[in-house]
Amino acid sequence: MKYTDHNTVEELKIAYVGGGSQGWAWHLMSDLAVADDISGEIALYDINYKAAKTNEIIGNRYKDLPDCASKWNYYATETLEEALTGADFVVISILPGTFDEMAVDVHTPEKYGIYQSVGDTTGPGGLMRTLRTVPQIEVIARGIEKCCPNAWVINYTNPMTQCIKALYNTFPGIRAFGCCHEVFGTQKLLVSALADMRGIKDVHRSEIKINVVGINHFTWINKATWRGEDLLPIYREFAEKYKDTGFNGKAEINWMNSASANSSRVKFDLFLRYGAIAAAGDRHLAEFCPKSWYLTSEKQANSWGFGLTTVDWRKKRQSDLLEEGRKKASGEQPVVIRRSEEEGVMQMRALLGLCDFVTNVNIPNMGQIPNLPMGTIVETNAAFRDGQLTPVFAGPIPAEIDAMVRRIASAQLMLAEAAKERDLEKAFAVFVNDPLVDLPVSEARKLFDEMVEGTKEYLQEYLK
Amino acid sequence: MKYTDHNTVEELKIAYVGGGSQGWAWHLMSDLAVADDISGEIALYDINYKAAKTNEIIGNRYKDLPDCASKWNYYATETLEEALTGADFVVISILPGTFDEMAVDVHTPEKYGIYQSVGDTTGPGGLMRTLRTVPQIEVIARGIEKCCPNAWVINYTNPMTQCIKALYNTFPGIRAFGCCHEVFGTQKLLVSALADMRGIKDVHRSEIKINVVGINHFTWINKATWRGEDLLPIYREFAEKYKDTGFNGKAEINWMNSASANSSRVKFDLFLRYGAIAAAGDRHLAEFCPKSWYLTSEKQANSWGFGLTTVDWRKKRQSDLLEEGRKKASGEQPVVIRRSEEEGVMQMRALLGLCDFVTNVNIPNMGQIPNLPMGTIVETNAAFRDGQLTPVFAGPIPAEIDAMVRRIASAQLMLAEAAKERDLEKAFAVFVNDPLVDLPVSEARKLFDEMVEGTKEYLQEYLK
Amino acid sequence: MKYTDHNTVEELKIAYVGGGSQGWAWHLMSDLAVADDISGEIALYDINYKAAKTNEIIGNRYKDLPDCASKWNYYATETLEEALTGADFVVISILPGTFDEMAVDVHTPEKYGIYQSVGDTTGPGGLMRTLRTVPQIEVIARGIEKCCPNAWVINYTNPMTQCIKALYNTFPGIRAFGCCHEVFGTQKLLVSALADMRGIKDVHRSEIKINVVGINHFTWINKATWRGEDLLPIYREFAEKYKDTGFNGKAEINWMNSASANSSRVKFDLFLRYGAIAAAGDRHLAEFCPKSWYLTSEKQANSWGFGLTTVDWRKKRQSDLLEEGRKKASGEQPVVIRRSEEEGVMQMRALLGLCDFVTNVNIPNMGQIPNLPMGTIVETNAAFRDGQLTPVFAGPIPAEIDAMVRRIASAQLMLAEAAKERDLEKAFAVFVNDPLVDLPVSEARKLFDEMVEGTKEYLQEYLK
Amino acid sequence: MKYTDHNTVEELKIAYVGGGSQGWAWHLMSDLAVADDISGEIALYDINYKAAKTNEIIGNRYKDLPDCASKWNYYATETLEEALTGADFVVISILPGTFDEMAVDVHTPEKYGIYQSVGDTTGPGGLMRTLRTVPQIEVIARGIEKCCPNAWVINYTNPMTQCIKALYNTFPGIRAFGCCHEVFGTQKLLVSALADMRGIKDVHRSEIKINVVGINHFTWINKATWRGEDLLPIYREFAEKYKDTGFNGKAEINWMNSASANSSRVKFDLFLRYGAIAAAGDRHLAEFCPKSWYLTSEKQANSWGFGLTTVDWRKKRQSDLLEEGRKKASGEQPVVIRRSEEEGVMQMRALLGLCDFVTNVNIPNMGQIPNLPMGTIVETNAAFRDGQLTPVFAGPIPAEIDAMVRRIASAQLMLAEAAKERDLEKAFAVFVNDPLVDLPVSEARKLFDEMVEGTKEYLQEYLK
Repeated sequence: MKYTDHNTVEELKIAYVGGGSQGWAWHLMSDLAVADDISGEIALYDINYKAAKTNEIIGNRYKDLPDCASKWNYYATETLEEALTGADFVVISILPGTFDEMAVDVHTPEKYGIYQSVGDTTGPGGLMRTLRTVPQIEVIARGIEKCCPNAWVINYTNPMTQCIKALYNTFPGIRAFGCCHEVFGTQKLLVSALADMRGIKDVHRSEIKINVVGINHFTWINKATWRGEDLLPIYREFAEKYKDTGFNGKAEINWMNSASANSSRVKFDLFLRYGAIAAAGDRHLAEFCPKSWYLTSEKQANSWGFGLTTVDWRKKRQSDLLEEGRKKASGEQPVVIRRSEEEGVMQMRALLGLCDFVTNVNIPNMGQIPNLPMGTIVETNAAFRDGQLTPVFAGPIPAEIDAMVRRIASAQLMLAEAAKERDLEKAFAVFVNDPLVDLPVSEARKLFDEMVEGTKEYLQEYLK
Repeated sequence: MKYTDHNTVEELKIAYVGGGSQGWAWHLMSDLAVADDISGEIALYDINYKAAKTNEIIGNRYKDLPDCASKWNYYATETLEEALTGADFVVISILPGTFDEMAVDVHTPEKYGIYQSVGDTTGPGGLMRTLRTVPQIEVIARGIEKCCPNAWVINYTNPMTQCIKALYNTFPGIRAFGCCHEVFGTQKLLVSALADMRGIKDVHRSEIKINVVGINHFTWINKATWRGEDLLPIYREFAEKYKDTGFNGKAEINWMNSASANSSRVKFDLFLRYGAIAAAGDRHLAEFCPKSWYLTSEKQANSWGFGLTTVDWRKKRQSDLLEEGRKKASGEQPVVIRRSEEEGVMQMRALLGLCDFVTNVNIPNMGQIPNLPMGTIVETNAAFRDGQLTPVFAGPIPAEIDAMVRRIASAQLMLAEAAKERDLEKAFAVFVNDPLVDLPVSEARKLFDEMVEGTKEYLQEYLK
Repeated sequence: MKYTDHNTVEELKIAYVGGGSQGWAWHLMSDLAVADDISGEIALYDINYKAAKTNEIIGNRYKDLPDCASKWNYYATETLEEALTGADFVVISILPGTFDEMAVDVHTPEKYGIYQSVGDTTGPGGLMRTLRTVPQIEVIARGIEKCCPNAWVINYTNPMTQCIKALYNTFPGIRAFGCCHEVFGTQKLLVSALADMRGIKDVHRSEIKINVVGINHFTWINKATWRGEDLLPIYREFAEKYKDTGFNGKAEINWMNSASANSSRVKFDLFLRYGAIAAAGDRHLAEFCPKSWYLTSEKQANSWGFGLTTVDWRKKRQSDLLEEGRKKASGEQPVVIRRSEEEGVMQMRALLGLCDFVTNVNIPNMGQIPNLPMGTIVETNAAFRDGQLTPVFAGPIPAEIDAMVRRIASAQLMLAEAAKERDLEKAFAVFVNDPLVDLPVSEARKLFDEMVEGTKEYLQEYLK
Repeated sequence: MKYTDHNTVEELKIAYVGGGSQGWAWHLMSDLAVADDISGEIALYDINYKAAKTNEIIGNRYKDLPDCASKWNYYATETLEEALTGADFVVISILPGTFDEMAVDVHTPEKYGIYQSVGDTTGPGGLMRTLRTVPQIEVIARGIEKCCPNAWVINYTNPMTQCIKALYNTFPGIRAFGCCHEVFGTQKLLVSALADMRGIKDVHRSEIKINVVGINHFTWINKATWRGEDLLPIYREFAEKYKDTGFNGKAEINWMNSASANSSRVKFDLFLRYGAIAAAGDRHLAEFCPKSWYLTSEKQANSWGFGLTTVDWRKKRQSDLLEEGRKKASGEQPVVIRRSEEEGVMQMRALLGLCDFVTNVNIPNMGQIPNLPMGTIVETNAAFRDGQLTPVFAGPIPAEIDAMVRRIASAQLMLAEAAKERDLEKAFAVFVNDPLVDLPVSEARKLFDEMVEGTKEYLQEYLK
């Protein structure tokens, strides 16, 4: 890494762990291509070396585009160490296990009447995914400690909270944070509320200033302003108006057709009862609430305006992306630069001192939320400034939602211990108390054992 | 109140609010009769004046017993103020509403598949009971502020937590605490474990020293010693031995025949999963846990070795006690002195400086449990010493049970606000998130409304 | 206040309390004149109406300058209410009492061997100044509550901590913060260290990112980075190099000639002993330390490279400024636009949503420094964003300086109580424990009484 | 250790480290001789083996006394390990270094105008004593960890705070606490106040119930009751009455004749200014306050009614005690049983389960004083119960004394680090900020170096 006289940074090295991934990796390529004050190389490491190689080809195509403002050199590496050595930034975006394991996460509980709308963060599926993810994250953390201890580490992998916790548990000196765009969607909903209730158009989500307090995918906005005005009263009117019908920002994006769309009815329901804005998609939120509220059945979920994401859908999407990747690599399909909504590159630039930036992020609680245990991985705003990532003081979890949030936060801490200690009994103690697991203890045990059996290839260290 | 040269206290005045009660009042009469270093008068106030009158007669009979060591003067008062004026101690033991309201508390939810083993503390029943109790407690608190602001106030009424909270909310300077004997039963279980696993006999429960940390009826023992030995490993063996069959200390006390007996299977189950000893009867504990664990149905409850307490059973018991009271008052049945297991008189003596005493008590959290919000009503040990009641530092809620305990504690704080503000919407927000209420939101609302309707005579202030 | 389509704000109203002041007011005029995205009016209120009138004339002259990018309308008001009504921002920059009182603050203690280098913040002088300032600030706070409760309030008056505390004590809903440029000077010293030790030139102080933790004029930097590099090791080398000789950034600014210049020897001494960078001028820092270290005598102060600011010097400067004001108003001397180093206008723009901004500020502790009492007025970074001022989480006061900082912070809280309650006895209890007051209790009392007597015109409410 | 059927404990082993000591050891012998429900052996270890041998003879003489209720076997050991192996209790009462080192502690600072009334806890003397004590305590802690990790460890050695801190720093699992009788003296002063102001006689100090909050020798009573009455108003009258003349409980005990007597004027002065009762002898208290208050000179100390304890006086007393020891061992002087005021044996009995006991003790802060850092060694009440030592929740340091107490507490924590790390520079950073060290930094350094030189025989590990 080298600063130039023109206040730019050259010769940066970014290590991308899970560098064969589609989607996320391509977003990054686009965003880097337009970042005209930084340049360097991206080492792509993936357990699927071929996929990393494909991305190497795709990435290097960006240089040829006329609108490419910054040329980056992409290359696949055969080992994790090779990718990490000397890295200034590390991006982690991996899939722990395969979609076959995810099918167990999501669909085995259905036999017991437990439906999950995502299944990668919490609930039985999120828990199992945690158990197999943590050992992999530990390997990466140890690699970072050895090869690039001062690198900034950006994680995109779910379960976000558990990945960040495992990174810090393994290498306490790590400079890691987790990024998630779910909060952005809620800022956009506030933009929609401004438009719908006040006729104010063309506000960008980043103009809506919010206070974020909670944990990933179950974080909350308890303060939102635009041009100095408190937006919560407007949001209340908006929620009242759409609480029964739901709100769809754009007609063509309908939850029936898209795994990530939703009608925000869950958010409205929670807000009208508890007074804070849950800041994630309804699919995620529903999984943290008592099962009876939104997820008793697929039908109930649909009645709240969201669908269940099946693993078949995921497999189909992945297959499409693989095909897209193949075409991009072969030149059948052109690569194009399209600035994504992600903030990763912005954060890098801020950490390099090229701008100041305040946004939401997942890091260990050191007091930014004083009424959650220290060390809980929390999602709040933070200031990204040259060489420093400092949480903004978010304040306590509001009393009205404390019962819900603390229940999850404490369970996550205990699950992190279970994973760290490879202790299935401790994991079960969390499992049986999950909001979605409304089973008698013996039934819960049967489900748990069945899920462990179904994903045992990735749980060998727990089964010794 | 007057101290004598012989280190005794004369001319004490005790105000008994709910002074027409059976059971509790008679225990107190017995315990006072043997307390040879204190004497004075007891003013009995009850909304049922006749019942207080009956207890006046009964109370005054004790003086004639040959084994009466301390003569007390009992008298009924027509007003609360008369009873409170000049009181050194106030005892509160009232029934909020009648058993008809309690029938709504306990049995209306059954129509929605919700079974409660007690229904007076938490769950839908405990919540409704809270709503109608708090306004009554507020009246008493204002009376105390006016008539005897320095009196020590002992509450026995359930819901304990909410009564203590309402006392302090109304009169922040009050010197109130709540007493509950559920912890004693758990000490006795430890005595049984010592006997059963080690053959050690004749240990009294008070010899088992414990650390108590939690909230009433859902408090926990995370440290227990006898003769310097850690009892938790012994309890673990004991729990393993009896986890499937349950343990009945005495053959004749069987949960099938007694509303308060239980087989401790719930306690064993919780201990083996979470590592701390839940310190209340199984009937109470079950109501704080996810419904699916122990209370899906009466049959499931029975399979865990405890029964549901019906209101009919309560009515029958009350009727028996009324008859017993009539006989005692008329002289058909003699009064007898039998030292109860309650500690109220011991606590009074300690607060008067006649002894030192450490036991468990319910008071606002001022830091004795540092990871619960300040002001939460917590149950921990406290030192009773001349003129001072000081909590022992209990330490944090252990991480393993934090998800369960915090969920309840936060809900209770929010419910206290709802009751204080006479806000049914806020109350419903708690209701729908109760561990026993596993209903879709709309169904939960129907149940809630039905329960409000059924007890509306006592909820007028909420319905304006 | 009105937002335009071009993302500018018009018709702002700024109330300037102390609007007759020289210096500060003129800085603001300059900075507003170049702020091309905001415009409006400034109401100048001063107990010296004539001074406000003079500034009205001066302020309105800026409009005629060719480089004036934003035209503001200045007008003096006869009442505080008139100035405050409808204000969007309030600036407070007053002199509590006159320089005659300040002469008592600074010079009476000299008779007792107590020398102060500033005397407006802490020490005997700062304490007396607090006593007479708080009642005046209370009047302003009540005015704000009545006339413009939602206005943002920027205080520049010393004692900063006590002014902010009094504002919040009087009107808890106030949106006030205190600005101080002392930290900027320390950033500049870091810039100098970079240049001196590494030959790196032309860094602007705002590029040095710092973590600020402490209380006004005694706040500390425990983290500083530039281009990702930790600056503390560089600062250590720098401190070692200049610890004996002192460092003067510019030869012509010498502490012998300037009341605010210093050689940073105090900062170096503190850093080398305690490991954190004290972030204020040496004159201020010395007053918070044990008297024996730097302020036993004027000679000792000089030997540490700083001088004592006499009130004569202040009177002279004021007289010069008055003359300068007269000339500016009469047109004898032109007004010129020169962007000041102050950040007030930048903060206003950020709070209006025109930019984001992170800088240091004085507000009540709500947990941003978790080991200082809540409500202590602390100086840390904060994020200024559209409609929100949120502290950055600064972290605990480092253990090495806790003894020094806590001592001051606790004394300030107690002094705030004394002032609020107009309680001279409580004030004396703080006075006698001040680091500079190394007197036997009876001597301290004599000095205290003498100072009260000397400033009694402004302490009438304490003397009833 | 063996419990009998009669609720007594036999075959206890007590290890006495510093077992050759006079005074403390003999008190213990007396108290054990009357403890009729415990018996066993005492292993006496001392670096002066001969002294331990002498005490072995003296201790074994008690068995022959007609009023000896409990016979204990005393024996000297040649190694620490031998004494510790299998011990149920460990008593630590050592002299770190000799009186020659103590002469440096106490008298070298006098050359710099610094007078100390005790010199063993704080101030320059206490600091130096800490430096040489900690390494010795570490050896004992490691011995305990190895030989008797479950033993209860009672420390009587000064500096108390630093000894306890070093024990826990070295062996975190240790069950150690520190006992100090200074608080008892303050309880007795309250007894005197009751007698003097109210004519109430024959109250025993243990009847005065107090809340204790602070650090050893600078701990405070902020609540005191007797027969339910708040004693603080009475104490205020008492302090007002005697603030100028001082109060001497018994005419013959005059501070002029006794090193430990004092007139309580310091306590009265502090109380009337800060509202809490400082709970130690004036000699100790004065050393924690700004030097100018009470210790500018010997004359000033005397004017406040206390004297300076010279090392010559200590040497003389030791010599007398040695002679007394010799006579007791030889039989020239009889041993007699006289129950001491110390509570060590009572505490042992409580920890064995033979009684319950609440008293003040020094242990690490785990939240019993929530506004002092965790791990600070604090003095508060604690409950001694069978197998458990649990702090009573003392509450926060009152705001009025926080500036004074926190300053000391933070310095002690930093000094503990300095001693643990054998870091003289860190020690000096504490030294120069001590309330008694009112010297310019360079002068302070000279004193520090001189004291290190004068005690270097015991500071070898710091000087490498």
